[in-house]
Amino acid sequence: MGKRALVLLSGGMDSTTCLAIARSEGVSCWSLSLDYGQHHRVELEMAAYQARVQGVERHLEVFVDLAKIGGSALTAALEVPKLGPTQGIPITYVPGRNVIFLSIALAWAEVLEVQDLYIGANQVDFSGYPDCRDSFLRAFEQMANLATRAGTQGHPFRIQAPLLNWSKAEIIHKGLALGVDYRYTHTCYDPPRPAVSCGLCPSCRLRLKGFEAIGGQDPLEYLT
Amino acid sequence: MGKRALVLLSGGMDSTTCLAIARSEGVSCWSLSLDYGQHHRVELEMAAYQARVQGVERHLEVFVDLAKIGGSALTAALEVPKLGPTQGIPITYVPGRNVIFLSIALAWAEVLEVQDLYIGANQVDFSGYPDCRDSFLRAFEQMANLATRAGTQGHPFRIQAPLLNWSKAEIIHKGLALGVDYRYTHTCYDPPRPAVSCGLCPSCRLRLKGFEAIGGQDPLEYLT
Repeated sequence: MGKRALVLLSGGMDSTTCLAIARSEGVSCWSLSLDYGQHHRVELEMAAYQARVQGVERHLEVFVDLAKIGGSALTAALEVPKLGPTQGIPITYVPGRNVIFLSIALAWAEVLEVQDLYIGANQVDFSGYPDCRDSFLRAFEQMANLATRAGTQGHPFRIQAPLLNWSKAEIIHKGLALGVDYRYTHTCYDPPRPAVSCGLCPSCRLRLKGFEAIGGQDPLEYLT
Repeated sequence: MGKRALVLLSGGMDSTTCLAIARSEGVSCWSLSLDYGQHHRVELEMAAYQARVQGVERHLEVFVDLAKIGGSALTAALEVPKLGPTQGIPITYVPGRNVIFLSIALAWAEVLEVQDLYIGANQVDFSGYPDCRDSFLRAFEQMANLATRAGTQGHPFRIQAPLLNWSKAEIIHKGLALGVDYRYTHTCYDPPRPAVSCGLCPSCRLRLKGFEAIGGQDPLEYLT
């Protein structure tokens, strides 16, 4: 049995690049998307498309109703800020999102007998989310290996975060080299029209800055 | 603001007793049930009932489709064993269940600004599940405090597991003293008829043994 991995795939640039990296290493991949009631639902379609064109074994979309819980501009009726990244943790932070995403991935990985969980977390050009930091990922890994049959019976899980210390420009550079088509990724938190990005939210700004840094052209359509 | 807690409420004996303990300490409680596609869905009704009669502030039932993932006799088309507790981890183990349950609770607790998460986990008369042990709960707590805004900004979460080292008999004894009506709790993994318990699955056996040990009568109806 060759190397197998489960890739958390949101449909954004980072997770799509993360999948391409795992595939480029000859790893058989399964991919998982989390439908958490996000307003920007097109990202789920992008994830399913990327899963297909990148040749994953199986793609699964699991629903969990975080909108019921509230507390984020991404699921509740709160306004997404039209500013660059701010100090501190922004209103677009979804409480527990990566914990829940990784937990569901962990459950499926145990069923699939997959030990490597790939996540496109990034702590350089990041948005101030605590659940994208290395210290969190290591703590999750430790917890996962106490929580599960596999982890307690000598088949430990490993959280792989190949993009963790890369700049956005480095991520795009690597992805383009691997043939990733960034036209079919979604980044905007607050799309003004279907398939059009606002260009102003913190997430769009980070993306645009990344393309600018490599002297490249973002293939997405922007309002501004 | 008085003490506030979020209680994980499955509708079984342990979580129902756990809620009664938190309430007896004068804690304002919110309660959370996880609809994970379990066959024994009556436990969700019991949870909602107990939440109401025990006076929680709000009860929430969150759906996450673990049946899609498979891997357990509780969600897939696998037979529930009619035996007492076995050595090792049984087929009724649901991969990642408590990790996912606690993760969703963590997300809601952060929104509610609640620091104490109560879980009825028990490592004495337990079923061999790795995610019911103290070492797992401590690791989850540590991870939670790295994952969240509250945890990283000086409002750490605490996992409270008051039943952790109690026997099933001690749990029932305490619950009866607090006025818990165990008629409205659900334990059986494989109910032969609505509101009738099999009496043979590992979960029923542990429950019956507990009532026997205190010389009490289980108010549930059993097939055998």
